[in-house]
Amino acid sequence: MVKFTVGIDLGGTNIKAVLVDQNNEVKGYLKRAVQAELGPREVTRQMMGMVYTLLGENKLVPADLRGLGLGVPGLVDRREEKAVFLPNLPGWHHIPLGQWIREELDVPLLLDNDVRMAAWGEKLLGAGRGWDDMVCITVGTGIGAGIFLQGKMFRGHGESAGEIGHMTVEKDGLLCTCGNQGCLEMYASGRAIARKARELVKQKGFNLILELVEGDEARITAATVARAAELGDSKAQGIIEEAARYLGIGLANLANILNPRRIVIGGGVAGMGERLLGPVREVVQARAMPVNRDVEIVAAQLGELAGALGAALVARCRLADGKEKLKEI
Amino acid sequence: MVKFTVGIDLGGTNIKAVLVDQNNEVKGYLKRAVQAELGPREVTRQMMGMVYTLLGENKLVPADLRGLGLGVPGLVDRREEKAVFLPNLPGWHHIPLGQWIREELDVPLLLDNDVRMAAWGEKLLGAGRGWDDMVCITVGTGIGAGIFLQGKMFRGHGESAGEIGHMTVEKDGLLCTCGNQGCLEMYASGRAIARKARELVKQKGFNLILELVEGDEARITAATVARAAELGDSKAQGIIEEAARYLGIGLANLANILNPRRIVIGGGVAGMGERLLGPVREVVQARAMPVNRDVEIVAAQLGELAGALGAALVARCRLADGKEKLKEI
Repeated sequence: MVKFTVGIDLGGTNIKAVLVDQNNEVKGYLKRAVQAELGPREVTRQMMGMVYTLLGENKLVPADLRGLGLGVPGLVDRREEKAVFLPNLPGWHHIPLGQWIREELDVPLLLDNDVRMAAWGEKLLGAGRGWDDMVCITVGTGIGAGIFLQGKMFRGHGESAGEIGHMTVEKDGLLCTCGNQGCLEMYASGRAIARKARELVKQKGFNLILELVEGDEARITAATVARAAELGDSKAQGIIEEAARYLGIGLANLANILNPRRIVIGGGVAGMGERLLGPVREVVQARAMPVNRDVEIVAAQLGELAGALGAALVARCRLADGKEKLKEI
Repeated sequence: MVKFTVGIDLGGTNIKAVLVDQNNEVKGYLKRAVQAELGPREVTRQMMGMVYTLLGENKLVPADLRGLGLGVPGLVDRREEKAVFLPNLPGWHHIPLGQWIREELDVPLLLDNDVRMAAWGEKLLGAGRGWDDMVCITVGTGIGAGIFLQGKMFRGHGESAGEIGHMTVEKDGLLCTCGNQGCLEMYASGRAIARKARELVKQKGFNLILELVEGDEARITAATVARAAELGDSKAQGIIEEAARYLGIGLANLANILNPRRIVIGGGVAGMGERLLGPVREVVQARAMPVNRDVEIVAAQLGELAGALGAALVARCRLADGKEKLKEI
């Protein structure tokens, strides 16, 4: 009996792949730096190599796989199985991923956007389990959301709903790559936190941060800022709090527009935990309408595995013969 | 055969009531200033009086009515048939409207929020007809929205979705009655437009506006500003354009979050037509993500009748024996 599925989470920096069994147990996990500079074809081969490694390590063959789920960081054409545009990976325009993958591995494929795959992961196995009106936000390099309404994922008429990172939070603010000014992503993403730290380092000398990166400003990331904050650096703490307050504005807006019961916050930046979530909740309580303040804001539970796990689970459920098909999907 | 339904739109200023037949033809229309100062009980009697007037004028009796739809400006408990809180009408806290109405008129009642009733009107008979992913916005004294997703009205887990007027558009902006700062409603509603005009009148002398209200600043409304703009007053035109630009920010946010195919703009302020819609569309094209710019922004078609018509239609569809039940409802 075919029991296993693989889920892959293709990111701008890393590829993560999991092998799960029919009980959603993780039988194997791999994380590799993506060889983005070699182009889409090579990255596809790299992903397939990871699938074969997972199979080999578990003494399995492709016929043991029920399906492959793949989340990619950008716009997807699910019907045509194409990666339409992945802004953080060079050369990924209208890539026929389905076709390329089938040339190397004969298993059913399910392709979707990475933020939605992570949202499915949290919905099925993590902090969103059992919640029907739920928004699962990924705060990483960028900011996006998977929206569940009455138990179903909501995608919008052209499948581009959930782009909450491009909500305007500063009318005359910083120019974003999307063309807008003052997008939430410019103030609350991992990239924004790192940029702010680099600015402060230049302006006032920001000794602890600089120590942590051995004087190399280019190496400052959101994780560096998080580390400095943990070590008690008040400037680093201030940067995180400011980002959290912007995120709170975005979430209060979401609460007023969608009236969700729960908002799950995942992604790399969410790893900062209560230092981030505390001020977020405070701002939502202050800014959302009284009737919309019952929204619970909680941390995601699957960590960096959310995307790959979500991909694996959705692939199994969608592609199964129907018996295991979850009604949510 | 029972053919008629009545729809009532209770507002902070006026009550509008329509009698429609089974072909959605309007057989009678009344508009009366609401006697708000007399309290909820008297206002309820006033509404019932209007129903009896409509019946009498058409030589009908209550038994000719299939149902009564009623939209009220605020929070509603549909199950308990209560008006929970109507901010613009004094004394309306947990009013058992269903019970009070039944004491005076024996027909099935359907109660809902006024913005949602207007959205239903536009969806069934107006600019939203045939559109499944559609947001219908009312820009009047306040700003709210009825959201249709895949043909169904979306209400949120606690029925308070669609409060787009309380999206933050100026982080450190004006204090709103909801407790938040910088709400869209404070910059783009009829009340905001009138407030801005009163400020300018004080600051710089704003002759045409003052002439139109015969020197009485208290009488300045959004309609006064619209009239002055039509007559070529550049300050009035500037006020409307500024409001439109804020509305555009809110709508670009909505486009990014919900990816709707069409946004219908109704309510009193929408009567300004292209003077308002032009800059709104411009801002949405500049600020929404490229993939979300295909949203059509159009004027509502039912004018001030939208709420009452929507109420009548929804009441008939919901309360009918099933044969005429529209699948959207």
